[in-house]
Amino acid sequence: METKDISRAIIERLPRYYRYLGELKDSGIERISSKELSKRMHVTASQIRQDLNHFGGFGQQGYGYNVKYLYEEIAKILGLHKQHNLILIGAGHLGQALANYVNFERRGFVLKGIFDIDTAIHGQKIRGIEIRPMEEIEAFMRDHAIDIAVLTIPKAEAVKIADELVSFGIKAIWNFAHVDLDVPEDTVVENVHLSESLMRLSYNLANSSVTD
Amino acid sequence: METKDISRAIIERLPRYYRYLGELKDSGIERISSKELSKRMHVTASQIRQDLNHFGGFGQQGYGYNVKYLYEEIAKILGLHKQHNLILIGAGHLGQALANYVNFERRGFVLKGIFDIDTAIHGQKIRGIEIRPMEEIEAFMRDHAIDIAVLTIPKAEAVKIADELVSFGIKAIWNFAHVDLDVPEDTVVENVHLSESLMRLSYNLANSSVTD
Repeated sequence: METKDISRAIIERLPRYYRYLGELKDSGIERISSKELSKRMHVTASQIRQDLNHFGGFGQQGYGYNVKYLYEEIAKILGLHKQHNLILIGAGHLGQALANYVNFERRGFVLKGIFDIDTAIHGQKIRGIEIRPMEEIEAFMRDHAIDIAVLTIPKAEAVKIADELVSFGIKAIWNFAHVDLDVPEDTVVENVHLSESLMRLSYNLANSSVTD
Repeated sequence: METKDISRAIIERLPRYYRYLGELKDSGIERISSKELSKRMHVTASQIRQDLNHFGGFGQQGYGYNVKYLYEEIAKILGLHKQHNLILIGAGHLGQALANYVNFERRGFVLKGIFDIDTAIHGQKIRGIEIRPMEEIEAFMRDHAIDIAVLTIPKAEAVKIADELVSFGIKAIWNFAHVDLDVPEDTVVENVHLSESLMRLSYNLANSSVTD
């Protein structure tokens, strides 16, 4: 699979294709035309053809796409055919919400351990997973082949913890702290900056009112 | 202010400029050169000049940017100089996490009401804000000049609730449900699809391993 040629823009769109194809598969639909998919996704049919042709999902003209095949190919490209082991750092409200979210597990993202700085909650469990002291992260990562760390801690601590995680060999950080992490090139960071998302909403709201 | 000319790509970057300028302002820095800002933000100086010149923030050559002025201009463009009144729909784990997040309020996003389908939790409070029955949304929106609804409910319900909110006159939806909402053009939707973010992380992790 020539993933090198796939642009960042397509990668941004892939999870959405994956979601729609999954829903089609679940409702028993085996084939779909780019035109029909275009109607559902509110994306042009030509955009869909361009995007999906990267993944060899194009059947014969007039027969449409093989839903299951394309779904599985996209899963592979997204790395969803392998299990990922996660640790969560920060058992505050957001951390608890993520730990309770079982859908991640259905996609192969398995939460193995939860860590927090607050000694008062050590030993407590969220969805059966124990909250542990920060000092145990390094050994835990080694013992459980952890590849992704989820950071739901204040930004002042996130920078320091990220450095430590990198020194322990973490390869990917899902960062909810409102700060840019400075990590080596071979460490992947995906940011979820909620307040920035809210500001974009506010911008679009302000702008749509202007044109009223 | 000619906001019409501002591209979507700049809008995506604006909240990040706003964050860095806010931090500079808080640490008492009055002026900063594009070169210095470039170093901090890991963006090229020329990109910064191009972006910020849209907002009239360019002082004299060699004097750098006026931090406070630029910060306030960007705040205005993002609509942060006005108060926004929010309701939260869905008091599950994620809803509770968002309701407890006080930083939004500091930026003028004030949570006024919380609604949930579960009668068992009606009357309970999160950060002093009462959880109310869904039937009260319409009257509450009118009485409290609500402009943003935050949806933290399962996707099956989100579509129906979004339709109702639109009929009640909502102008903006911050959507955490993993579904695309079909709303009229003058209703703004900002999606936070956490599982799609996790898939992008997984893709980047898979791809960075390949090149090891």
